[in-house]
Amino acid sequence: MTSIQDLIRKKRDGEALTDQEIQTFIHAVTDKTIQDCQTGAMLMAIWQKGMTCEEVSSLTREMMSSGEVMSWPKEWAGLVVDKHSTGGVGDKVSLVLAPALAACGCKVPMISGRGLGHTGGTLDKLESIPGFSIHQSAAKVLEILGSVGCCIVGQTETLVPADRVLYELRDATSTVNSLPLITASIISKKGAESLSALVLDVKFGRAALCKDQDSAKELAQSLVHAGNLLGMRTVAALTCMDAVIGQCVGNSLEVMESLETLKGRGPDDLMELVTTLGGLLLQMTGLVSDKSEGRKMIADAVIGGAALSKFQAMMEAQGVAKETARSLCSANSDYCSVLRKAEHQIELKVPTEGVVLDLNGLTLAEVLHKLGAGRSEVGQPVNHSVGAEVLVSLGQRVSKGASWLRLHYETPAPTEDQIGRLQAALTVSSNTHTDTHTHTLVKELLSH
Amino acid sequence: MTSIQDLIRKKRDGEALTDQEIQTFIHAVTDKTIQDCQTGAMLMAIWQKGMTCEEVSSLTREMMSSGEVMSWPKEWAGLVVDKHSTGGVGDKVSLVLAPALAACGCKVPMISGRGLGHTGGTLDKLESIPGFSIHQSAAKVLEILGSVGCCIVGQTETLVPADRVLYELRDATSTVNSLPLITASIISKKGAESLSALVLDVKFGRAALCKDQDSAKELAQSLVHAGNLLGMRTVAALTCMDAVIGQCVGNSLEVMESLETLKGRGPDDLMELVTTLGGLLLQMTGLVSDKSEGRKMIADAVIGGAALSKFQAMMEAQGVAKETARSLCSANSDYCSVLRKAEHQIELKVPTEGVVLDLNGLTLAEVLHKLGAGRSEVGQPVNHSVGAEVLVSLGQRVSKGASWLRLHYETPAPTEDQIGRLQAALTVSSNTHTDTHTHTLVKELLSH
Repeated sequence: MTSIQDLIRKKRDGEALTDQEIQTFIHAVTDKTIQDCQTGAMLMAIWQKGMTCEEVSSLTREMMSSGEVMSWPKEWAGLVVDKHSTGGVGDKVSLVLAPALAACGCKVPMISGRGLGHTGGTLDKLESIPGFSIHQSAAKVLEILGSVGCCIVGQTETLVPADRVLYELRDATSTVNSLPLITASIISKKGAESLSALVLDVKFGRAALCKDQDSAKELAQSLVHAGNLLGMRTVAALTCMDAVIGQCVGNSLEVMESLETLKGRGPDDLMELVTTLGGLLLQMTGLVSDKSEGRKMIADAVIGGAALSKFQAMMEAQGVAKETARSLCSANSDYCSVLRKAEHQIELKVPTEGVVLDLNGLTLAEVLHKLGAGRSEVGQPVNHSVGAEVLVSLGQRVSKGASWLRLHYETPAPTEDQIGRLQAALTVSSNTHTDTHTHTLVKELLSH
Repeated sequence: MTSIQDLIRKKRDGEALTDQEIQTFIHAVTDKTIQDCQTGAMLMAIWQKGMTCEEVSSLTREMMSSGEVMSWPKEWAGLVVDKHSTGGVGDKVSLVLAPALAACGCKVPMISGRGLGHTGGTLDKLESIPGFSIHQSAAKVLEILGSVGCCIVGQTETLVPADRVLYELRDATSTVNSLPLITASIISKKGAESLSALVLDVKFGRAALCKDQDSAKELAQSLVHAGNLLGMRTVAALTCMDAVIGQCVGNSLEVMESLETLKGRGPDDLMELVTTLGGLLLQMTGLVSDKSEGRKMIADAVIGGAALSKFQAMMEAQGVAKETARSLCSANSDYCSVLRKAEHQIELKVPTEGVVLDLNGLTLAEVLHKLGAGRSEVGQPVNHSVGAEVLVSLGQRVSKGASWLRLHYETPAPTEDQIGRLQAALTVSSNTHTDTHTHTLVKELLSH
């Protein structure tokens, strides 16, 4: 019988753990028979020494099996899909993609998170809609997938309990950014959804977890490998995350922009992400024969209004009053009659005439976080109404004194320093001949 | 304000912690405001990345200051000394050295341990004497040092509490064998004794913590450096630990051998260790001008009976009945009328005529451990009567069938396999011309 000390010693010395040893570790974590100090030491040893592909695969499988694994009706075989993003500023892709996929015939049991730091996660955004409940039982998820085809819910207590324990300890022990631990955490949760296909949006850039394309690629390869080994067809898109996705940042504002997109009036960059990621999933399900056909099918579902109907039905299925859902989805909706608008708005002005060269999304997110749009600790509330609208696009000619950012705030109000940081986030070139090449977000696809 | 996560991250990345940061960590350990998972992660990060001399010095000082630091009467200035050994098989040096030093005018507040694995520690040996109490208050220690000059006691609750917490977690997290952590643990406890001078017996070889002289030297240098930085004059002897110190192993049997040594009839190797280590301490106190003079002074105290009187007085001061102490110290003591003798003895026979070339002390210790002479977990009792007498010396000519080991056992009895292992621990050369050079234990001295 191998003791936990022996397992720690082995990983401490850089040796690979066997499947059996990883099972022993994860069972001990789930059963709480391991001491917290031992988990902390093991996490640090993994951080320091890494894991082989076999170890990561084994860790992912054991974490997945630590709790309930969902099962679906036979007739959905091949159609159950989901997307995971490593997180970006203004990332409201899920809100558009889930109903678009459902409109195309997929089943999308999207389990999402609240997000720490920056702005809120997908769940926080949805909770800015009055009545929307992210807590749904496994039976209810099955029912909504049957009737609507998509839902966006929070993680239940019974799903991947080992991840909940480990995630909390990783946060406390500064071992969050470890490739094997990130991989096992993400893929085990998707594995417990019993997906047929998974697409990953691995972001890199100033406002992303991965600062450059190489590190994003390394993470993407690890995720794709672990996903495929669990029997899910898995591909990853590496996408650039320097500025902001779309023009709105903040929970309510992003819901409005998602609804506008579902009404066919969405920004190009958001549509690029939605159609690319959705197209890849449709190709993997076999509903289309190649990804360009998939992109078109998703675009049609969004532009044509089928996705909007699914979103409306999903809101109703998840607790939103029929009248509220209908009002939000009407062509000329007065969003502010339903979604709370911040008490104060202020517009920031372009300091000098020229062409918009750059917008630092990280700075914007950090300031909005301080103003209450995000949380620093699990359980903290967020202010759904706090956010910002970017009123200019990269490459756009702007005049001095034009508004470039509308900041929505309540308490606290932005400080002078924060306003200064925001102004510094905008770069305007006085050289009017600057090359303004089209900005493409998706840089590379990885399938295995 | 630096958070614990920040400290872990810094050490995780191999950076040196500042004095202030190490103080924050040790305060949090002592106050129990740090989470156990965080301590485990920090210990593993220290294990992986090491510490600079400055960090080790700071860690040692902060651990020492986590509890009570003893203080002594002014007139003892320069005279308060102690020894620390990294542990060996049959190591009863403390039992002879402490009273010998007291007989030479030193004050020896020896705080010892119980020892895990192998055979018992110094405290277990002393507890085989009926009535001997290792629990003495700080006030009582002061009184015994005043009247007798030496005592051998267990660690109190108030001394170096941070070490007690960390030691338990190091054991659980497989981070015991880390040079900075070993150094801080040993030296902080000696620092809390407010010693004038400290001698370290750092053992290397088959039956020691350090397997070779180089690793022992590395440990010794770290210990000597940290000790001197705390203001204690500190030197280390590197001593060889392949076989057994003296001829007896086991708690009661080692007390008997110590008493025989204090009556002038001790084995040469034990006397070499006692006089070398004691001589170094006497030189550091300034009571003698060089270490050979010190060796002679210690040898005279042992041979002449002055050390025996101190041992007798120490036993009485620590709870042993006057009559018992007198009986043990009489010239022709029947030790077995006081110390418990094992129910069974068995003698192992030399398998072939020749010269004794080698005796594996580690094997002997491991078998005795299984027979109950040592413990595997804190709090387990040990059987004081279990042990062994080695009846031959290295280099001695022996005949086939002569007895070479007398094993003292109770329950469990030795298995055939264990007897086989013991027989394999003896190497006899049939080549009678084998060079039998004198065996010297002390290989090197280190003062800074």
